[in-house]
Amino acid sequence: MINIKNDYSEVAHPKVLEHIMAYSMQVNAPYGEDKHCLHAAQLIKGHLNREVDIHFVSGGTLANILSMAAFLRPYQSIIAVETAHIADNETGAIEGTGHKVITVEGEDGKMTPKEIEGVMSIYTHEHKTQPALVYITNATELGTVYTKGELIALREVCDEHGLLLYMDGARLAAALTSEFSDISLGDLAELTDAFFIGGAKNGLMFGEALVLVNDRLKPDFRYMYKNRGAMFSKGFLMGMQFEVLFENDLYFELGRHANRMAALMAEGLLARGIEFYKPRVTNQIFVRLSDEQIERLSEKFLFEVFQYPKDGKVVRFITTWSTTQETIDLLMDFLDGQ
Amino acid sequence: MINIKNDYSEVAHPKVLEHIMAYSMQVNAPYGEDKHCLHAAQLIKGHLNREVDIHFVSGGTLANILSMAAFLRPYQSIIAVETAHIADNETGAIEGTGHKVITVEGEDGKMTPKEIEGVMSIYTHEHKTQPALVYITNATELGTVYTKGELIALREVCDEHGLLLYMDGARLAAALTSEFSDISLGDLAELTDAFFIGGAKNGLMFGEALVLVNDRLKPDFRYMYKNRGAMFSKGFLMGMQFEVLFENDLYFELGRHANRMAALMAEGLLARGIEFYKPRVTNQIFVRLSDEQIERLSEKFLFEVFQYPKDGKVVRFITTWSTTQETIDLLMDFLDGQ
Amino acid sequence: MINIKNDYSEVAHPKVLEHIMAYSMQVNAPYGEDKHCLHAAQLIKGHLNREVDIHFVSGGTLANILSMAAFLRPYQSIIAVETAHIADNETGAIEGTGHKVITVEGEDGKMTPKEIEGVMSIYTHEHKTQPALVYITNATELGTVYTKGELIALREVCDEHGLLLYMDGARLAAALTSEFSDISLGDLAELTDAFFIGGAKNGLMFGEALVLVNDRLKPDFRYMYKNRGAMFSKGFLMGMQFEVLFENDLYFELGRHANRMAALMAEGLLARGIEFYKPRVTNQIFVRLSDEQIERLSEKFLFEVFQYPKDGKVVRFITTWSTTQETIDLLMDFLDGQ
Amino acid sequence: MINIKNDYSEVAHPKVLEHIMAYSMQVNAPYGEDKHCLHAAQLIKGHLNREVDIHFVSGGTLANILSMAAFLRPYQSIIAVETAHIADNETGAIEGTGHKVITVEGEDGKMTPKEIEGVMSIYTHEHKTQPALVYITNATELGTVYTKGELIALREVCDEHGLLLYMDGARLAAALTSEFSDISLGDLAELTDAFFIGGAKNGLMFGEALVLVNDRLKPDFRYMYKNRGAMFSKGFLMGMQFEVLFENDLYFELGRHANRMAALMAEGLLARGIEFYKPRVTNQIFVRLSDEQIERLSEKFLFEVFQYPKDGKVVRFITTWSTTQETIDLLMDFLDGQ
Repeated sequence: MINIKNDYSEVAHPKVLEHIMAYSMQVNAPYGEDKHCLHAAQLIKGHLNREVDIHFVSGGTLANILSMAAFLRPYQSIIAVETAHIADNETGAIEGTGHKVITVEGEDGKMTPKEIEGVMSIYTHEHKTQPALVYITNATELGTVYTKGELIALREVCDEHGLLLYMDGARLAAALTSEFSDISLGDLAELTDAFFIGGAKNGLMFGEALVLVNDRLKPDFRYMYKNRGAMFSKGFLMGMQFEVLFENDLYFELGRHANRMAALMAEGLLARGIEFYKPRVTNQIFVRLSDEQIERLSEKFLFEVFQYPKDGKVVRFITTWSTTQETIDLLMDFLDGQ
Repeated sequence: MINIKNDYSEVAHPKVLEHIMAYSMQVNAPYGEDKHCLHAAQLIKGHLNREVDIHFVSGGTLANILSMAAFLRPYQSIIAVETAHIADNETGAIEGTGHKVITVEGEDGKMTPKEIEGVMSIYTHEHKTQPALVYITNATELGTVYTKGELIALREVCDEHGLLLYMDGARLAAALTSEFSDISLGDLAELTDAFFIGGAKNGLMFGEALVLVNDRLKPDFRYMYKNRGAMFSKGFLMGMQFEVLFENDLYFELGRHANRMAALMAEGLLARGIEFYKPRVTNQIFVRLSDEQIERLSEKFLFEVFQYPKDGKVVRFITTWSTTQETIDLLMDFLDGQ
Repeated sequence: MINIKNDYSEVAHPKVLEHIMAYSMQVNAPYGEDKHCLHAAQLIKGHLNREVDIHFVSGGTLANILSMAAFLRPYQSIIAVETAHIADNETGAIEGTGHKVITVEGEDGKMTPKEIEGVMSIYTHEHKTQPALVYITNATELGTVYTKGELIALREVCDEHGLLLYMDGARLAAALTSEFSDISLGDLAELTDAFFIGGAKNGLMFGEALVLVNDRLKPDFRYMYKNRGAMFSKGFLMGMQFEVLFENDLYFELGRHANRMAALMAEGLLARGIEFYKPRVTNQIFVRLSDEQIERLSEKFLFEVFQYPKDGKVVRFITTWSTTQETIDLLMDFLDGQ
Repeated sequence: MINIKNDYSEVAHPKVLEHIMAYSMQVNAPYGEDKHCLHAAQLIKGHLNREVDIHFVSGGTLANILSMAAFLRPYQSIIAVETAHIADNETGAIEGTGHKVITVEGEDGKMTPKEIEGVMSIYTHEHKTQPALVYITNATELGTVYTKGELIALREVCDEHGLLLYMDGARLAAALTSEFSDISLGDLAELTDAFFIGGAKNGLMFGEALVLVNDRLKPDFRYMYKNRGAMFSKGFLMGMQFEVLFENDLYFELGRHANRMAALMAEGLLARGIEFYKPRVTNQIFVRLSDEQIERLSEKFLFEVFQYPKDGKVVRFITTWSTTQETIDLLMDFLDGQ
């Protein structure tokens, strides 16, 4: 079976494993207070023009739990689009921290300033929660990306209403290296209050680098880190992995590769008249296939089929740092052979 | 100023106060384990054909917090309509207990079986919360009521999916005594798993009687009762108040009065060509007035103006056990004088 | 049966009920935003020399839940003595808000600066919770009171360690009017960050006045108030009740009466050679009786028997605003008749 | 610097890394639903005579959070010894799930049936939490182990009171392979309701295998798993690691090695007249050193210094799967050279 289902099905990029092997018997301080974490954080900070705090977390949902629990007071809520991971895919993890997630429809998986304004015009008094944070993903769950202009507009409306802006970057590499993106890591440190740089979906075994930009969010964060079970005993494992990713821009290279493969795949699909649910922007491709096509394709390929409440059945293909031209070719051959 | 804004602006019905006065120096066991609570519970049970447990709670939001915390496991969620009190008006109190509230649009403030089916068709796996309870209000936030047929249909879809059915009865008196309602208290004990009988909006100083029907919900409930701060030291105060309400059907009499006054008011409004947002069913009247009308009316009357996300500005008038014909006349005179 | 078991077994002091009756049909704004609450708050503020915020809460446990949830961040903890109400008698309500209660032994139910120092010397890093608040009761669960010197010493150690000082004043009236107390309400506003003035145990039907002294605790408090189910629809009921208590110093008069009756009772008990578990300080009397004495006394009197982990069986008698000389005499006669 | 500070300072045992390398590009199902997890679970189940469910969790604190949140109802509490990890070292993580941790003194870090009885004799009514689970660690935080007789006695008292028995096995390998232990993995499946098999402290990069024995704890567990952020996207990483540990009894071999090294170290220390705080039982050694000794030792060795509330300063040395005879020799030489 050929995997075009997700970007977290292989162990890790070879360089990541080699790097870890190189230090296999090295004694390191636990809980993320080691020199690898320090070094990795410095490498990331090299891309930013702001004083930030960086904490490595072993998973995206845990990073979201941790952040929402740390950033918000109990009566405060989060604004997110309906398709947002925290709204749609985390089994109530955020509500589990006591916070309401207010959803708006979004446009192609993206939050709009107007929707934030809409929420703020209704959530105006103490019988409703107090919205305090806007949660966005980049790339979104529909593979789209925010432009710098869009981020600036979100920042402005957040500032106007005293809202934090938080970016879930589980697929940030694909977003930043998309040809449709004009933003950099540095921009994120200018425009968000906190964001995380996803590792697991871009070549790491595991690990997300949570970047705290807003000074108000920094104090005592390690207490929350432990309190929510996110403090990792062998935190240095994440330090080592992020060292590799950011030492020679491997992070961006892997993201670019995934996008390039997706572009090729999309090109092939378009050429074969496949209907797209959403235009391809990053490494996720959403298309419509007949039930028969889905069934046949399932014999050889692993892929995702979503049933959207409003839009019905949609097929997702995904490319990754490990996707090869051969995979694309096999898919095209298969489609041609139908 | 004349109050047509809400049904909880006066201390209490005179009979309630008299009854309490009569026992003012009587020594009673605390925490709801007294003979007044026992007696009040027996009076309520006299209307039901099921073995139930009854716990008196000092407020509706607290009753909802308590119930959701007690009935659900941490990963479980609640299905409610958008306008539901727990979704719209409790400052995230339910999310504060860790549970997601999944909202559907509803029809005139009421939940439909089809909407429950719709949610259950999507919430099918462990990356989403597990819906476990359907929350309905009766009368709803839009003043509408459930018919027996509608409740049976909800019960059936709940049974099919293993869902609890819970009714917030903050305005249950107005619902049960509405000419549009064909259900009785006894029906609720047949068709719901738990419900509460609101007192504060029907003549009491405070107090809601939470009725646990489903045997599974009964054990250890008093632990939760204390854990959430709902165990009232002088619980007998609620017992005394509910004794009055259910001793001579005062509960129903007061509800009927509120509905009768609302019917008269609605008649007068219709006769004057006022546009109704929703037809009048219980003691809440939703109409559309011009900004000028609202402004003028505000000089003499206390009333509510809602700004609905989709439907814009709506005015609510409310009648209560204490509303007099004179109030209706004054409102009509005022409208005539415009 | 004669009640010497607790101070919350009667409806309320007659003046409280009369006052409420006088306003029975008055229309008041809901949710504590009415003129009675405003007036009652002003009367209380008249005793204080600090700008404070006052919120009325319907019960002590709920006031504690609300305060701890509002004042603390998720990883912060509370220091309390073992016998403290929140540690011993609230069914984990505080842990239910997510916060650890660190207990120390205490001296006669009172916290000592040394014990706080002891905790702070151990809770020094992020693998342990961050103590952030010292919880004390006054009068304590053992009937003792804090002197001004003791409070100042606690304040100093709290300031040194950045800890909030919070006083649960469920029995504050008995404390302030004890002949062993040298503190005033005004002192509390100087020395604590927040405290509440108990009503239910001093003549009210219900109601505790939560006083927020520290400016940091004030913003957005009404959001928490609603979020935890503590916002009372007919909040004016508490306003009315506290008006009576503080209009003519009834609050202090009732506390003094309870103490006077306790002093008389203690005198009689001492004269009869009854062994005291703790010296009498306020309206709670702790004595040791034989099982036979307990059994016989139970025929005529309602009283409390505690089983302390370390100290074994202890009998508590309690006097209240409603206790009469006759009750004392009956108890003495009964003891004499043994 | 030579590490005798903890057992989680190196990446992993070489066989673990080799095994992962061997599968580096293999496509696996995410979220723990892959064949490696299945296989690893089967290997573990081979040691047990009960139908169990096994879930791999990335850390011990997270496993505890997850388990307590899943096993208990909101008003229920946990009984643990004062030195227990959840009581002493998890920054209130368990209280963060809403549950009180009731502590007892313990004997050498171990829970006694008598202490459970003591708690149950006090926690008898609804004004206190309802104890529902006994939490023990094995090996304990003081390096001691439970004997089979002790476990049976705990099981009996738990059964008598309807309590769950849960074992935190972060250092289970050292416990089971201690010469002072007479229990097997199989015994744990007979005597506990749930336990976890620690990997991170016994040669893995990370991973604890949570074993659910009691059928009542099994349903819907994966919902909680996701809800608390414990569902790991590349769950197969833990499957792979546990495969290695249990394929050829490496798990036990590594535990035995750590104990053997500790025995040698203890022998040397005793021979040199070092005072032991507790006798050596597993891979943790607790001794008393002078401040001067501590200071000098710090120049060459990494070790832990605890400040116990009652017992003062205690030094902990720890051996692990990677400790060599050379390390022991160097320590002895150093002590001889003083």
